[in-house]
Amino acid sequence: MTAAPRRLESYVCGSWNPGRSEGQLLSDAATGAPVARIDSSGIDFAAVLDHGRRVAGPKLREMSFHDRAAMLKALGLALMERKEEFYTESLHTGATRSDGWIDIEGGIGTMLTFASKARRELPNTRVLTDGEVEPLSKDNSFVAQHILTPMRGVAIHINAFNFPIWGMLEKIAPTLLAGVPCVVKPASQTAYLTELCVRRIIETGILPEGALQLVCGSVGDMLDHVTGQDAVTFTGSAWTGRKLKSYAPVVANSVRFTMEADSLNASILGPDAGPGTPEFDLFVKEVAREMTAKAGQKCTAIRRVIAPRAHVQALVAALGDRLGKTTLGLPYEEATRMGPLASLDQREEVRARIRDLQADAEIVAGNPDEVKTGSGDATQGAFLNPVLMYCEKPFGASAVHEVEAFGPVSTVMPYDDLEEAVALSHLGKGSLVSSIFTDDPAVAADVVLGAAPFHGRMLIGNRASAKSSTGHGSPLAPLVHGGPGRAGGGEEMGGMRGVKHYMQRTAVQGSPRLLSAVTGRWVDGAPVQHDVHPFRKSLAELRIGDQLITAARQVTQEDVEHFAHFTGDTFYAHMDTEAARANPFFDDRVAHGYLIASFAAGLFVEPNPGPVLANYGVDNLRFLTPVYFGDTLQVRLTCKEINPRASAEHGEVRWDCQVTNQNGAVVAQYDVLTMVAKTWPAVAAQAAE
Amino acid sequence: MTAAPRRLESYVCGSWNPGRSEGQLLSDAATGAPVARIDSSGIDFAAVLDHGRRVAGPKLREMSFHDRAAMLKALGLALMERKEEFYTESLHTGATRSDGWIDIEGGIGTMLTFASKARRELPNTRVLTDGEVEPLSKDNSFVAQHILTPMRGVAIHINAFNFPIWGMLEKIAPTLLAGVPCVVKPASQTAYLTELCVRRIIETGILPEGALQLVCGSVGDMLDHVTGQDAVTFTGSAWTGRKLKSYAPVVANSVRFTMEADSLNASILGPDAGPGTPEFDLFVKEVAREMTAKAGQKCTAIRRVIAPRAHVQALVAALGDRLGKTTLGLPYEEATRMGPLASLDQREEVRARIRDLQADAEIVAGNPDEVKTGSGDATQGAFLNPVLMYCEKPFGASAVHEVEAFGPVSTVMPYDDLEEAVALSHLGKGSLVSSIFTDDPAVAADVVLGAAPFHGRMLIGNRASAKSSTGHGSPLAPLVHGGPGRAGGGEEMGGMRGVKHYMQRTAVQGSPRLLSAVTGRWVDGAPVQHDVHPFRKSLAELRIGDQLITAARQVTQEDVEHFAHFTGDTFYAHMDTEAARANPFFDDRVAHGYLIASFAAGLFVEPNPGPVLANYGVDNLRFLTPVYFGDTLQVRLTCKEINPRASAEHGEVRWDCQVTNQNGAVVAQYDVLTMVAKTWPAVAAQAAE
Repeated sequence: MTAAPRRLESYVCGSWNPGRSEGQLLSDAATGAPVARIDSSGIDFAAVLDHGRRVAGPKLREMSFHDRAAMLKALGLALMERKEEFYTESLHTGATRSDGWIDIEGGIGTMLTFASKARRELPNTRVLTDGEVEPLSKDNSFVAQHILTPMRGVAIHINAFNFPIWGMLEKIAPTLLAGVPCVVKPASQTAYLTELCVRRIIETGILPEGALQLVCGSVGDMLDHVTGQDAVTFTGSAWTGRKLKSYAPVVANSVRFTMEADSLNASILGPDAGPGTPEFDLFVKEVAREMTAKAGQKCTAIRRVIAPRAHVQALVAALGDRLGKTTLGLPYEEATRMGPLASLDQREEVRARIRDLQADAEIVAGNPDEVKTGSGDATQGAFLNPVLMYCEKPFGASAVHEVEAFGPVSTVMPYDDLEEAVALSHLGKGSLVSSIFTDDPAVAADVVLGAAPFHGRMLIGNRASAKSSTGHGSPLAPLVHGGPGRAGGGEEMGGMRGVKHYMQRTAVQGSPRLLSAVTGRWVDGAPVQHDVHPFRKSLAELRIGDQLITAARQVTQEDVEHFAHFTGDTFYAHMDTEAARANPFFDDRVAHGYLIASFAAGLFVEPNPGPVLANYGVDNLRFLTPVYFGDTLQVRLTCKEINPRASAEHGEVRWDCQVTNQNGAVVAQYDVLTMVAKTWPAVAAQAAE
Repeated sequence: MTAAPRRLESYVCGSWNPGRSEGQLLSDAATGAPVARIDSSGIDFAAVLDHGRRVAGPKLREMSFHDRAAMLKALGLALMERKEEFYTESLHTGATRSDGWIDIEGGIGTMLTFASKARRELPNTRVLTDGEVEPLSKDNSFVAQHILTPMRGVAIHINAFNFPIWGMLEKIAPTLLAGVPCVVKPASQTAYLTELCVRRIIETGILPEGALQLVCGSVGDMLDHVTGQDAVTFTGSAWTGRKLKSYAPVVANSVRFTMEADSLNASILGPDAGPGTPEFDLFVKEVAREMTAKAGQKCTAIRRVIAPRAHVQALVAALGDRLGKTTLGLPYEEATRMGPLASLDQREEVRARIRDLQADAEIVAGNPDEVKTGSGDATQGAFLNPVLMYCEKPFGASAVHEVEAFGPVSTVMPYDDLEEAVALSHLGKGSLVSSIFTDDPAVAADVVLGAAPFHGRMLIGNRASAKSSTGHGSPLAPLVHGGPGRAGGGEEMGGMRGVKHYMQRTAVQGSPRLLSAVTGRWVDGAPVQHDVHPFRKSLAELRIGDQLITAARQVTQEDVEHFAHFTGDTFYAHMDTEAARANPFFDDRVAHGYLIASFAAGLFVEPNPGPVLANYGVDNLRFLTPVYFGDTLQVRLTCKEINPRASAEHGEVRWDCQVTNQNGAVVAQYDVLTMVAKTWPAVAAQAAE
């Protein structure tokens, strides 16, 4: 722990750059020992952005979504193998093993979740379609479709000190999936851990050169060189965030700017959740956990504890008791439950904010000026025991809704009815997350719907989810992270929503033929080909627009009655003339929808063994015109979308299936989903004939 | 046309307010005659925002999406009845009848489209779900769902002078649908037309008081009072937009700010589209139309004309010829093809920008300093004949890619290959719309995919869509309007995307029971009720979670063979043991997916006449486990979502349908969509028994 400080380097323009001057000294949070020196002077930041755009952009855009997902999966697995090295380095930040877990395995896990969601939820293409085809003319000669394409710039990710690894990975995962290169600028204070992680990433050789650059130290004049194709994300203090967001080149170029700032997250104890209920105990545990995990240095930590007036006394007692048992100490000591703050300066900052809060609230547990530790030296390490405060009149107060002490500090405030609880949650003026602990569905609905416009995420805690809940403070890859107002107005992650943040949405209008050429998906009205039965074609031969027009088949009363008795579906609209005629949708007895789909399959399948392996589903099936006895059905089946799997011998093929009657009216419209082999020897031979 | 100027009034806090001072005089664009005086001094802007939030917000949020859609439809129809009055007033702006059509009927039509899309595409609820339910635990005790709720503030819409009605209606339609009150501030120059339209809107009494307020004149200190729950949209000059976007209270509160500014929209003539092709003629017509419609005062007008070098000469000749025949004159004269610019000042502004462009380009048609009109006085009216310019070396140039002359002015520039054409389109640094005229699918794909990241909308013009195309310059309600970079980075409309812009997305996590209570949709794991068969219940009786567990049914080889021969679906996986076993997904012959769905329906339907009227479709059907001969199927059918129609005696009910086998494995999972009557007498009687 007392080695000489190492020199951090930036990874820019393809090489490691130590900077020019001596730079800033970074110290161990728990011991005050020197850890590293950091400096970015001398870097040509215009060249950094250009390197990403010019060298990595084209390579990333050449890859498909599944290629990029496979790349992230490989990277995540490689990092997981090196995790112990990260845990060791993480100790300097003051993080205990469980704090480190959030950052290290939480971060790598987030990257892996993005990789697997992308393979499941995105097609294996380079361009995404967004929403349905929009008809713009009656004769179907002019239609539109929104598409998403990767932005042509770089994403600059400016991160906070508290999660040096997670903060990087949760942002670069969606960015790289979108096909956009990244420049990461960690907060200097803990940049040594980010730098170590980037070293290991670069060493794997998994990312194309330029896809990830790292700036250790100041960003210099980098933001003077942004264009409308770049994006900037910022996590950190609201003051800095606002300065960057309104920086002239950022505004002038309409640079996408995502800000995620401190927020005064609230947690509400439901009126039903008094002492003795499981929810009361869960609430006490959760508030104490959120105050002490990472020593309260989490943007999502609970800062405001909103409780029924009747239960406030019991709550304060239970919380004070629990917090008093939190052993502070050196992060690597087994007995330690809470490590130090990030630095001695940070401790002074938190103490100053506690004094601000004292304008509205009194301290009811803990003493900011007297440190008790189980191990470690409180003059060298930034230790601070948890401090619980109480604000008797939260509606007249301002500091408790405005001032964030970024450490193990929370304020309890009472409410008289649920409306007041919701109003108090609003007083935070927008936050990343809020929670409500209740087992009453009406309370859950009132609080969530009442408070949702002010929060990016809301967690409902109760006995049923006690064991499986991921907790108030945990942002998750599939859920949006960010919040309105004070929280910065940003939105990150949220599964594939986060990927789209780095893509441009464009409405494309044109004739079906030309639109289809752009999207690679068949659109009704685009050209079709009729040759062999398309079920005889493997992915190697199949083309968008391959179409089958089937023979026609009449549906008789006998068919309908036979189907009804065979399946058991003797619904009155098929069987009872009088009841069918009384029905507002039908003039007479009608055929079953499932009979129509079954007959359609009978008309379009090719029975012999071939490359079509399975029908694994149907999408958006709509029965549009009733089928009466004597009507004749015919099917038009057209290959709409082809998605070869990267890691299998087959892929998904989506077919447009349209069933019409003898008058040409569309009876049913749906997508048939099949698995098709990539190659099929017999078919290749047949094609060669 | 020479009446004394009328006094415009603001509609704020429930009454009409003429302002305090004499204010600004507004003149007729074509005659210079005084039209109106405008002034907003003395208005308490904090009270205006508060009025919207406090008086209208709760009323709008109480309405469902379908209620709000019905309100907009009624309003649109009422305005359409009054359109001639708007056309008359519109003449003062210099708009011809066809210019007025874009603004008046285009605007009202946009509102009506929003109303009908909302009824079709949104549920009849107050809260929207967004995306799928996200599983967060293996035992399904903790899940998440994103929801969208209306923001609790107001939307401030600051609009441009060129479309006084459309500019208002295209913004307030999605805002009101979202349940958010509006404050509209039109550009002073043409505010008399907006004011007239708002008078007629308020007179109808269709909107709740406070849902629409109007500020005629300056916005004063309004933006000092915004909160994180408000939104601001701005359409107009980039200079003003940037100033407002970086205004401290806007930044400090993370106010959603949508900017739509001037952009240097390009149109590309494909290399295949030489003289003599239909695309060449369409291109000439489109460029000339975009230059002259609204006298070129459209944010979407074509400013840069990118053409193959070989065709430039022919193009300039054809365009010059066509533009030369454009008769300028008083907007109400029948012979007039193009009216004046908005004001004499505006004409001087455009002339100055033409001089700027002359740094890079020469004038090849028209003369900005010599006005020829068919009617009207060029010293009183802001007439300006179209001016075509030519830039020989566009890659070395900057003015032609930077300077917008907001009038009938465009610059032709040559390209040598398609890559150059795309690169020139990028030089606009982001625009609202770009177009390509080609009949070659490869050209369409290369240009659109190459240029899309820089544009919010792209139109492909060709012979097939010549008659039905809505044209380069027309934003449409279903498509996004806005663009990256210079265009402001905003996104408006885009169908229901535009509604969501005024709602907050929140990830809600909890147990299925409590989550279901929040969203009003059944989530797997939430409570269920078993009493009478749910198909016996009308909407009056049916409850979310009403569930049927059916009897079990075995699937035999005879069933499968019988179904195969009956339907004609003799696909090898059902019929041929050897081929089925060779298939990577199956161990043996399997039952048809359509047989499984048909048997499932046979198990769950209630055959007697009842409130379930029809099965109109199936969503997201997936076959998850193969069904082999001898397997036994059982269905769990659960009422998931209930959507009563406002204007019918029935509504849509979505059922969760899960088919399992004898081992409890899920064989098929899908949503069954039915129409159900609101009431059903026999059932009511039965329930009363």
